[in-house]
Amino acid sequence: MRPQDIIRKKRDGAELSREEITFFVNGVAREEIADYQSTALLMAIFLRGMTDAEQSALTEAMLHSGEILDFSDIPKPKADKHSTGGVGDKTSLLIGPFAAATGVCVPMISGRGLGHTGGTLDKLESIPGYRVDLSLKEFRAVLDRAGFAMNGQTAEIAPADKKLYALRDATATIESIPLIVASIISKKGAAGLDAMVIDVKTGSGAFMRERDRARELARALVKTGNSLGVRSQALITDMNQPLGRAVGNAVEVRECIELLRGEFDEGARPVLDLSIELAARMIVLSGLESSVEKARVRIQQVHASGAALECFRKNVEAQGGDPRVCDDPAGVLPLTDKVFKVESARSGFVLQIGTEEVGHAIAEAGGGRVRMEDQIDPAVGFVSEVKIGDEVRSRDPIGLVYCADSNRGQQAAARIRAAYEIGDERPSELPALIKEVIDK
Amino acid sequence: MRPQDIIRKKRDGAELSREEITFFVNGVAREEIADYQSTALLMAIFLRGMTDAEQSALTEAMLHSGEILDFSDIPKPKADKHSTGGVGDKTSLLIGPFAAATGVCVPMISGRGLGHTGGTLDKLESIPGYRVDLSLKEFRAVLDRAGFAMNGQTAEIAPADKKLYALRDATATIESIPLIVASIISKKGAAGLDAMVIDVKTGSGAFMRERDRARELARALVKTGNSLGVRSQALITDMNQPLGRAVGNAVEVRECIELLRGEFDEGARPVLDLSIELAARMIVLSGLESSVEKARVRIQQVHASGAALECFRKNVEAQGGDPRVCDDPAGVLPLTDKVFKVESARSGFVLQIGTEEVGHAIAEAGGGRVRMEDQIDPAVGFVSEVKIGDEVRSRDPIGLVYCADSNRGQQAAARIRAAYEIGDERPSELPALIKEVIDK
Repeated sequence: MRPQDIIRKKRDGAELSREEITFFVNGVAREEIADYQSTALLMAIFLRGMTDAEQSALTEAMLHSGEILDFSDIPKPKADKHSTGGVGDKTSLLIGPFAAATGVCVPMISGRGLGHTGGTLDKLESIPGYRVDLSLKEFRAVLDRAGFAMNGQTAEIAPADKKLYALRDATATIESIPLIVASIISKKGAAGLDAMVIDVKTGSGAFMRERDRARELARALVKTGNSLGVRSQALITDMNQPLGRAVGNAVEVRECIELLRGEFDEGARPVLDLSIELAARMIVLSGLESSVEKARVRIQQVHASGAALECFRKNVEAQGGDPRVCDDPAGVLPLTDKVFKVESARSGFVLQIGTEEVGHAIAEAGGGRVRMEDQIDPAVGFVSEVKIGDEVRSRDPIGLVYCADSNRGQQAAARIRAAYEIGDERPSELPALIKEVIDK
Repeated sequence: MRPQDIIRKKRDGAELSREEITFFVNGVAREEIADYQSTALLMAIFLRGMTDAEQSALTEAMLHSGEILDFSDIPKPKADKHSTGGVGDKTSLLIGPFAAATGVCVPMISGRGLGHTGGTLDKLESIPGYRVDLSLKEFRAVLDRAGFAMNGQTAEIAPADKKLYALRDATATIESIPLIVASIISKKGAAGLDAMVIDVKTGSGAFMRERDRARELARALVKTGNSLGVRSQALITDMNQPLGRAVGNAVEVRECIELLRGEFDEGARPVLDLSIELAARMIVLSGLESSVEKARVRIQQVHASGAALECFRKNVEAQGGDPRVCDDPAGVLPLTDKVFKVESARSGFVLQIGTEEVGHAIAEAGGGRVRMEDQIDPAVGFVSEVKIGDEVRSRDPIGLVYCADSNRGQQAAARIRAAYEIGDERPSELPALIKEVIDK
């Protein structure tokens, strides 16, 4: 088998065999295939697409390019959630405790923020002492103790994905559904999951802005997950405005802990609603409840009883963080008093929000990464006061930017102000939080 | 400017600007752009195509990536011929002398054979002593003395092409019209030509088997050549059977010298006819004659008078070869007595010839290269006895394979025998040698 023959076949729109795909992925993982051959194939896949059989073979080959975690001796169903990424998207911090408190084992492998989107690992690291570079042994110990554990991808998991992702980033081949699906599912599959829910974002702050593309991606994820024996379901959810009020790292963790404690502002409610919905589906897919309705009730119980907060506390403690964050988030998290008001330029109604722009504004103020090697300031963030459809008067606060650096804070505030479009008429429709359920 | 943004633009089917294309080509030539980015762009160009403006910018950027030869002090029009490659395609060895004897200066930059096709440089090297690695100074001296000179591509000419060609070979991006055109015309443009004829082969031994694709390529070559100020014309010619009788290296040189001497078998006539036609068009494009008819007459004169043979002799001498080859080709060229008959398996008519297969058979017997680094045995060859439409009886000779190695010779004979399709009915139509003239 020669790489160029495989490239030619895909270039001409033919279907690659499982053997050809496996040969290629293994060649990439073992560095036996030249990068310049890999990228030619990636571009051919980008432009020609993949059939279901190719998608499944690619994902499986990438999954088997590295280590597969084995938690089969833990007598609980294993499940996880994946989000395609958004602004203020912090549901992992609630879903972990909700699912764990209900009896699901949640071995979460999460990522860093890049560009306009945040990353779960960055958020958790704003808790003093919290570690996300656990060894496999430590990861297991946290799972045993707290029921959920949060860690970064290790070099051993799906190394072909790591290699290909870096090449895709440099060759404009990121936004390809088969490549995205293989990247996501190979990592999830390597974590030995029984079930998985996927939150596919759509709207002005999502990678898949268009509903049709989001649906296409959701279907491919669910189909491929199921084909690998991971019971999968996807929700298409709204990303036309930041999820909840907080965008940043420490501010988002604070919002989550307030939600877990039941002490929160109504503006944060969508975070709770979406987290419950995703966790409920995880519980059903895990076989612990027979219906989403029953699962929702279970979650509301562990939420109200404080059991979910206790799970979170155990996790923070087990991962080296300061557990007092659960009692006094504002006192423990690195927040800053230096705030910059984002004022409405005029009176009217919030019509649209350039959500990606809000994400970029906070990332460039230090709350995220423009490049992978950038350092994050956990204190930088934005907390909004208004949502789409809200009425505002001129100079009313749209929200507050938190930033210790005045220049960067002012710049971010100005960008966010420009991202909120205020019009005369009340919008006839508000964006629905959950738009669609994709289960096959 | 970032390479990935240029890749993205082409990936999405947009037109690249001249600046973007030049940035990329210069980056390739200076090795500032990673190979894995180059190949992603090559694949995107392969699948998305290029507009005329992009084609012209790409060609010009590649041309200017290296040295441009300057023969402006030679007071003759400069012209060359390029062929897209075929089996038994040896017209350069006649066109050089014909055009030179008529007053055209012909600085030919030729290539090596690869795969099923032969290469002019390999053929010439079968003349003992003949050198094709002339310095620029030597090349000039040969031009002055013989009117035509034959040399390999130097590292200084279009280095971006050299780099990109190697990458294309490894990534299945050879057969792209814009990339082929840029590769051919950039090298011709760098040789400082006034005029150029292009022989675009079509049929079972050609790279462009389909007539439509051949026409598309011919048009793109002519248009791009003209856009760079090189007066260009293309002929679409037949490659459904080997051109003439001989396929190989020494056997092809012998056929050419016999043609120049006027001592040839009728089976070789198509080589003469096509060479005259191509040379005549070169002479007209060069401004030395006002019509193809007049140019043909001029060529017939220099052929009959022996002036063309004299030009060839001067060239052989000037390039270090043994000039006695012109008097006694069979005595000077490395031929072999070891022959293997290719016999017809049945009685009937030659319907079709798998010409590419004939080329591969001779290449693999040692007469060509499977890989670029392979050594060639100049004595290996095939001389055919029949053409499409000829009647044969069972065990009649289709031709002779020349090969000093019995195993390889027998294998080649068997492959060639299988490549000749003999049927009951006389074919209703014979393939026309010259199918089309493309002049814009």
